[in-house]
Amino acid sequence: MFRKAKKACTRRVFSGIQPTGIPHIGNYVGAIKNWLQLQKKYDSMILSVVDLHSITLPQNPETLRENIYDMTACLLACGIDSDKCILFQQSTVPQHTQLAWILGCICTLPRLEHLAQWKEKSEKNKDVGTGLLTYPILQSADILLYKATDVPVGKDQIQHIELSRDLAKSFNTKFGVLFPKPQELLGPLPKIKSLKNPKNKMSKSEINPMGRIDLTDEPDQIREKIKKAVTDSTSEITYDPENRPGVANLIEIHEALTGDFAEDICETAMLESMDTHKYKLLLTDIVIEKLKPIREEFFRLQKDRHHLDTVLEKGRLNASEIAEVTYKEVTKLVGFR
Amino acid sequence: MFRKAKKACTRRVFSGIQPTGIPHIGNYVGAIKNWLQLQKKYDSMILSVVDLHSITLPQNPETLRENIYDMTACLLACGIDSDKCILFQQSTVPQHTQLAWILGCICTLPRLEHLAQWKEKSEKNKDVGTGLLTYPILQSADILLYKATDVPVGKDQIQHIELSRDLAKSFNTKFGVLFPKPQELLGPLPKIKSLKNPKNKMSKSEINPMGRIDLTDEPDQIREKIKKAVTDSTSEITYDPENRPGVANLIEIHEALTGDFAEDICETAMLESMDTHKYKLLLTDIVIEKLKPIREEFFRLQKDRHHLDTVLEKGRLNASEIAEVTYKEVTKLVGFR
Repeated sequence: MFRKAKKACTRRVFSGIQPTGIPHIGNYVGAIKNWLQLQKKYDSMILSVVDLHSITLPQNPETLRENIYDMTACLLACGIDSDKCILFQQSTVPQHTQLAWILGCICTLPRLEHLAQWKEKSEKNKDVGTGLLTYPILQSADILLYKATDVPVGKDQIQHIELSRDLAKSFNTKFGVLFPKPQELLGPLPKIKSLKNPKNKMSKSEINPMGRIDLTDEPDQIREKIKKAVTDSTSEITYDPENRPGVANLIEIHEALTGDFAEDICETAMLESMDTHKYKLLLTDIVIEKLKPIREEFFRLQKDRHHLDTVLEKGRLNASEIAEVTYKEVTKLVGFR
Repeated sequence: MFRKAKKACTRRVFSGIQPTGIPHIGNYVGAIKNWLQLQKKYDSMILSVVDLHSITLPQNPETLRENIYDMTACLLACGIDSDKCILFQQSTVPQHTQLAWILGCICTLPRLEHLAQWKEKSEKNKDVGTGLLTYPILQSADILLYKATDVPVGKDQIQHIELSRDLAKSFNTKFGVLFPKPQELLGPLPKIKSLKNPKNKMSKSEINPMGRIDLTDEPDQIREKIKKAVTDSTSEITYDPENRPGVANLIEIHEALTGDFAEDICETAMLESMDTHKYKLLLTDIVIEKLKPIREEFFRLQKDRHHLDTVLEKGRLNASEIAEVTYKEVTKLVGFR
């Protein structure tokens, strides 16, 4: 018996990152490292610095402008290759908001109000703009505009990928089949925790900067932050996230940066009779060595605005080429001449 | 004493009309006739066929496409002059949705939910898209994108012009002064009533087509509709909208199409001993004569898609020229590079 030949289907990854300034190693391990794999693995990958999403909460314009450049420089410094993937700034491709308007006309209000992120964010931030309610529609437009099939996300974003699938389905039913159903790519991504509060995620919004290691931290800063990282009163190195979250977090950073397994890391530490102090020195060397080329490349790129503008312009052109085709199909189906 | 010379300030009119198909004489008298005056009076007038607004309620794509052409042809047939004003299709200028996204991030949800039109429309239409809530933001973007100063509207739209002023003010305060405050232009516009239900507005949504006279109605249709228009048991012609709404409505159509005053119309009718039957014949002749050139020009234009495409393309280019400049200023102020 012969199977029917499966129709070749272009798999395309879309992902977005907000221009929040310099990423920390939590961002690197949780997202950027994964994109480095995906840009090798997929024929088509699109990575957007999503400035339109960042203004759903108030931003200082000067800071935002710097952050867009810094995020772009950091992504390049980490190894995002603008020849292998389309790296562009979201607001420079107008079809994102154009498609979002159309999707907004087929997305009901209750559908948005039931999203967990809206409930959480609207409780935390009073008197916010409507964008905080409607941004999942823009996310759907981000994805569908490129007919992306795979969207790497964290668990907190699964509901939003479901929304983009629902809107794709609604659109296809109402107007004619156009959009593939995007799937979430849930990588085996460790969530790096704060060095000062190892029960919480490492985060830019943590007030104490000692809780995180930014990708551009100098060796002395890295040394100081790891030295003062919260551990516990036990001196051996064991991997026990439940009871020893501080030490486990250090081991997870180690795992993520080297690819070694926690078990092997602990065994080596035992064989070499390392206590937490000594282990921290080892980890410090690893982190410094890993971040050195990234930091150096970042500062080189940060000074070269012309190069960053050129990269983003190339990205804009390449993204627009796809976006224009899709949007033209959309307008024909919707009835805009 | 000398007054300080007032700084010359470009007054610019912006108005939008939904592509709902052929307008009726209520639309003509209530909006189009006013635009004909404004395009003479103002240096700059922008008139948009707002297809993005029309999809806030479900539309058949083929009908929508025809309606965009028909509305354009009708406006031209009525005397809108694409050399004197910018006539364009809203969805072809992407900056409308781009600016709407930004304004949506500074417009709070309660501000939208308190608008009377939302309360009314969301009660009538269940399970509608989010666009029905957020379209007043898009309206604000429509206006502010062209830095329009004057917006001809009906009373039911005053709240929305207030919103556009509030958003202009918020934007100017947060990011730097850019937008003038748009003012509503409330013309002395008579509201033509249904010929069958003279207490209600003449409307496309009235199921009985005998209630309205479309601009493209043939003489026989006009004759029939006016003949069967609801009046009352009194045969004299008097203007008494309260007690004789049917007759008053006919007189108001007469006034609007000829510029004569109700008083004079009634006096002439008395002098010529007209009863309602005779008066209807007089009005029929007036309406037929007024609509004849519009109908003929409409059907000529309707067949000439190439011309309509050319007009809308010229409009798109002219509108884009202004929209691009404003949006560039916006992105600089907001911090998008």
